[in-house]
Amino acid sequence: MEITFLGTGSAYPSPKRAASSLVLRYSGELWMFDCGEGTQTQLMKSPLKAGKINRIFITHLHGDHMYGISGLLCTISQSNQRDGPVSIYGPLGLAKYLRVTLGLSRSDLCFRFRVIEMVPTPDMYTEDNDRLCNIPEDDVTIRHHAEDEGMKVDAQMRDGVPYWTLIEEGPLKVRAGKLEHRIPSFGFIIEEDLVPGKFLVDKLESFGLSRGPVCQQLMNGITVTSPTGVPVTKSDVMGPDIPGRKVVICGDSSNSSYLAPLVQNVDVFVHETTLQNSMEEMAVERGHSTPQMTAEFAKQVNAKMLIITHFSQRYTESSKKAEDSYTVADLLKETRESFGEGCEAADDLKTFVIKTNK
Amino acid sequence: MEITFLGTGSAYPSPKRAASSLVLRYSGELWMFDCGEGTQTQLMKSPLKAGKINRIFITHLHGDHMYGISGLLCTISQSNQRDGPVSIYGPLGLAKYLRVTLGLSRSDLCFRFRVIEMVPTPDMYTEDNDRLCNIPEDDVTIRHHAEDEGMKVDAQMRDGVPYWTLIEEGPLKVRAGKLEHRIPSFGFIIEEDLVPGKFLVDKLESFGLSRGPVCQQLMNGITVTSPTGVPVTKSDVMGPDIPGRKVVICGDSSNSSYLAPLVQNVDVFVHETTLQNSMEEMAVERGHSTPQMTAEFAKQVNAKMLIITHFSQRYTESSKKAEDSYTVADLLKETRESFGEGCEAADDLKTFVIKTNK
Repeated sequence: MEITFLGTGSAYPSPKRAASSLVLRYSGELWMFDCGEGTQTQLMKSPLKAGKINRIFITHLHGDHMYGISGLLCTISQSNQRDGPVSIYGPLGLAKYLRVTLGLSRSDLCFRFRVIEMVPTPDMYTEDNDRLCNIPEDDVTIRHHAEDEGMKVDAQMRDGVPYWTLIEEGPLKVRAGKLEHRIPSFGFIIEEDLVPGKFLVDKLESFGLSRGPVCQQLMNGITVTSPTGVPVTKSDVMGPDIPGRKVVICGDSSNSSYLAPLVQNVDVFVHETTLQNSMEEMAVERGHSTPQMTAEFAKQVNAKMLIITHFSQRYTESSKKAEDSYTVADLLKETRESFGEGCEAADDLKTFVIKTNK
Repeated sequence: MEITFLGTGSAYPSPKRAASSLVLRYSGELWMFDCGEGTQTQLMKSPLKAGKINRIFITHLHGDHMYGISGLLCTISQSNQRDGPVSIYGPLGLAKYLRVTLGLSRSDLCFRFRVIEMVPTPDMYTEDNDRLCNIPEDDVTIRHHAEDEGMKVDAQMRDGVPYWTLIEEGPLKVRAGKLEHRIPSFGFIIEEDLVPGKFLVDKLESFGLSRGPVCQQLMNGITVTSPTGVPVTKSDVMGPDIPGRKVVICGDSSNSSYLAPLVQNVDVFVHETTLQNSMEEMAVERGHSTPQMTAEFAKQVNAKMLIITHFSQRYTESSKKAEDSYTVADLLKETRESFGEGCEAADDLKTFVIKTNK
């Protein structure tokens, strides 16, 4: 399991820092999280193959997180990189966005896609949101000709917080939780199934068994009989199951506390850190977080590793020249002051390996 | 007057060649033509100031020519670069595209904009177009909150070809003409007014006049009386008016002949040249041109200078390694073989100066 950041800048893409996007690689599949303008070009600069992307998740509908999605789909199609379907997850409105942009641009796609929309809870719509979104979010009911029927997912409740169930099949389960931002924004919680423990060869041999088809039976929970007539179960010859990895990837947020019951003991927590600690007032006003805000929450949920991203475009290396200005290295330093060492700063095209738990 | 190419690649942006966009600079104003994904990042790499853009023209609604427009508007606004209005011209459907993308992304803009849409003639809608655009083009009637009332422009006819009148005021007049492509596509014709001739100082002096307010009167067509009582007119003391410059910027096209009556004697003719001569069949099938097709038409309309652009992403410098593969330099060579020397190849961030006529 690996995460590769394609863009780590806030608000808009720049030649120094692209707009938000990252890719989770797992078992030969690529899952993309956010797709700001220019993401397809960043992908071309990376070793990742765009045609391997089978799921795209959009945290919220701000342009710097989704204006690249239609172009990415067109390019994957034009270069004949894919024939399998693509599932696209995001807030209500995403299906309309795709139907209108792909439809008006008369875009052909050589693969099928479907859109799974999360219906925000009413409190996620701020006044600001309603002022700026003066059109309905779901009135385009004619699907794109390459689009299969998708679905709308309503929130469920657990421990007093809402969550949206997105993927229940396969080795990685995905839910989303609520964040506080100027518009509905979500954090995605990716949970790997328990990984079966290893076969203990000496235990197997002590029953007179050896590796082979019998192991598959044992793994499937079947009790087998040893050559000496002893019933043998999985727990007799295998080490304990290993807890699966848990990764959380958040959208823009000035308050992630609604995630707390859902993300305890997360292995890797990816969270925005847009502005430095001294700019907290402006950060919160704009729906963003500072290093301290991010670190305090990551500590609260006992995150093993914190990766900060979504840095204001004001933080360039050249800003270092001005004595009072910050760089991303300073944001990381501020985060470590609160969180400790298990914290890293993302960067465009930087990959983090997420090792199996022991 | 200058043209700066921001992106010169066909179909999609790549790290080597960005998607279609160019900027015409004239009298302190910047006019953008096409705005593919990533155009805002290309602008940041250029010396041009995005906030000076007061008009944007879109040749056709394919994604590689317009997917960057909403992001560009957002970034100009976010960085407080502009307060004056922006006029946006393009095919019917562009207003809906902007309303839906800006609306769903809840984008605030700190300046006003308006959209002037060209209504294509019925023959410009191909079967391919209708199959791929399965939604209405103008059913979003609620304007964005930063949008002023625009207009729809129908075609007029002249010499048997349609044209659309877009700008009739100011020193540069703009019309559009019809191209043949898979979807409605336009070429923009920019015509500078006659430039008044220069005052001939020796002639002025021969009448006993000198430079000053009297010159403005003469320029305005007023007859003045010399100190010796002789009536003096503009033509007595000024050289002849200089013909204004004429620049034509075309969208994607496999047949530009409908432009012919409108673009005779053009000074600078910018036209796509997507694929090499030997790939003419594929080029035409996809609605594109080869060097020979472009050059023959440019000769037919007596273009003084031809600039080719919109090169297939297959033409990279590294493709030079394969013996049978072409580069953009080869496309230029093929164009010159038909057109002669007055031809150049565009490149990302390359600027061409268009001198005043003599």
